Amino acid sequence: MFDQITIIGCGLIGSSLLRAIDKKKLSKKINVFDKSKEAQSFIKNNLPGNVFDDINESVKGSDLVIISSPLSSYKEILLSIKSGLKKNVILTDTGSTKKEVNKVISNLNLKDVFWIASHPIAGTEYSGPESGFAELFENRWCILSGEDQQQKETLEILKKFWEKIGSKVKFMAFEEHDYVLSLTSHLPHAIAYSIVRTVINKEDKLKDQIIQYSASGLRDFTRIAASDPIMWRDIFIDNSENILKVLDSFSENLHEIKKAIQSKNTEKLNDIFSSTRKLRKEIIKAGQETDKPNFGRK
Amino acid sequence: MFDQITIIGCGLIGSSLLRAIDKKKLSKKINVFDKSKEAQSFIKNNLPGNVFDDINESVKGSDLVIISSPLSSYKEILLSIKSGLKKNVILTDTGSTKKEVNKVISNLNLKDVFWIASHPIAGTEYSGPESGFAELFENRWCILSGEDQQQKETLEILKKFWEKIGSKVKFMAFEEHDYVLSLTSHLPHAIAYSIVRTVINKEDKLKDQIIQYSASGLRDFTRIAASDPIMWRDIFIDNSENILKVLDSFSENLHEIKKAIQSKNTEKLNDIFSSTRKLRKEIIKAGQETDKPNFGRK
Repeated sequence: MFDQITIIGCGLIGSSLLRAIDKKKLSKKINVFDKSKEAQSFIKNNLPGNVFDDINESVKGSDLVIISSPLSSYKEILLSIKSGLKKNVILTDTGSTKKEVNKVISNLNLKDVFWIASHPIAGTEYSGPESGFAELFENRWCILSGEDQQQKETLEILKKFWEKIGSKVKFMAFEEHDYVLSLTSHLPHAIAYSIVRTVINKEDKLKDQIIQYSASGLRDFTRIAASDPIMWRDIFIDNSENILKVLDSFSENLHEIKKAIQSKNTEKLNDIFSSTRKLRKEIIKAGQETDKPNFGRK
Repeated sequence: MFDQITIIGCGLIGSSLLRAIDKKKLSKKINVFDKSKEAQSFIKNNLPGNVFDDINESVKGSDLVIISSPLSSYKEILLSIKSGLKKNVILTDTGSTKKEVNKVISNLNLKDVFWIASHPIAGTEYSGPESGFAELFENRWCILSGEDQQQKETLEILKKFWEKIGSKVKFMAFEEHDYVLSLTSHLPHAIAYSIVRTVINKEDKLKDQIIQYSASGLRDFTRIAASDPIMWRDIFIDNSENILKVLDSFSENLHEIKKAIQSKNTEKLNDIFSSTRKLRKEIIKAGQETDKPNFGRK
């Protein structure tokens, strides 16, 4: 499909892409750059692709360049690769927010570069190149966002690329993407971090018991609160406007429950607790979740 | 092990107990009472045990009586069965809070009744007798709480009973139980309900997208927000004191994250997001969770 692809940043997502591109034979050559020496040596010893020490060298001659590193590193990366990019290269990323990133790229005024953002909705609570696997994107959504209507052809190529990786592709405007994800992903993460911190800040004498009885609800939250800290720090800075808004709306909902508990308003609590069951049914119906109790976990 | 057991309330937990007692042959006879006609007919057609229409009749002659109905129904149930209880019967329950329940029972001044509370930390997001299964309690904790030191013998019998059902048994004082569970179970549920309500209160035009991209975090919360509303209403009323305290402490933690986002304090966010990974590792190490990414969900 491509003659040469470059992956910049080879953590969970980047290394899964590397494995998938290799497995599905989507490129004759794959170049890989990661600034971590540890990651470089892991890739050399365990994964396909040519590992580069020099980021600018790694993009030379590539038809597709994928940035798969934390959002805060984009600007530096783009400045470093700018002069090495091939004419009419397709530039994409795998980041979780879009609006600010798009501003950064627009401001760079890259010439003869087709920039289209990708967001594969896939991941696990583990990070690093050793955690990746080729099937990570299979049956997952990948959201593409581009500004320029003239990019239709490029959009089609990138859509096919992600479909060959195994994903289902959707298009979305930058702003809409950031708003929807602030609800489905960023809010749940902020909450999960807060809840886990509430628990770990408690006195140590009950800590063993808290861990022992975590199956009663807590453990589900610890999974997403175990995600990569740097990635999440960058998402919260980047999409702060939307996230602060939904956090306020969450706090109002929590306050409603608090008030109902304080006033022992059983009817209100009943209403609140009944209203939420429907959403799960809809998510299961949409094929986004298993209907096995406990996620099928034994 | 017993000559006759009565189960009062035959939903997810009660019917799982019924199945497990039958499967492991822990009683010669099993009596079942459920006030719902629908449940009665389901049990008659699909499950072992003798279904009773009269709750007082159902406990007569039983050596062990297990209340497995919502906390708010305990008082009425106890008043109804009081006169039918056999001398030296063991009375237990499967409720999720203990302190208030214990007060209710103490106030009734039951004579020749050995009351010990049970809390099996097991359940799924489904309810009703059709959702139960004999293996629900296997390898799960069951917390026993009793006040009277002279009940040692009864405690031992009940411990063996739960162990034969497949559970690991711990003893805990009523107060400690309610505090620990307010952190590991009740807080996560309050939060899950709030988060799902935050999302479902949004305009409908983005609803399809929200459901589509729920795999990015939201769907994990919808599982516990789909639990039985009546059961949870009762828990929040019963354990309100502890729950309101931990909710306040949660709100403080959330406010800390909000402040860090507002001031774009990357260092603080990094600290917050790094601090939470350890707890998950400890939970996995304690055997309370699978270490498979995504709970092994495909």
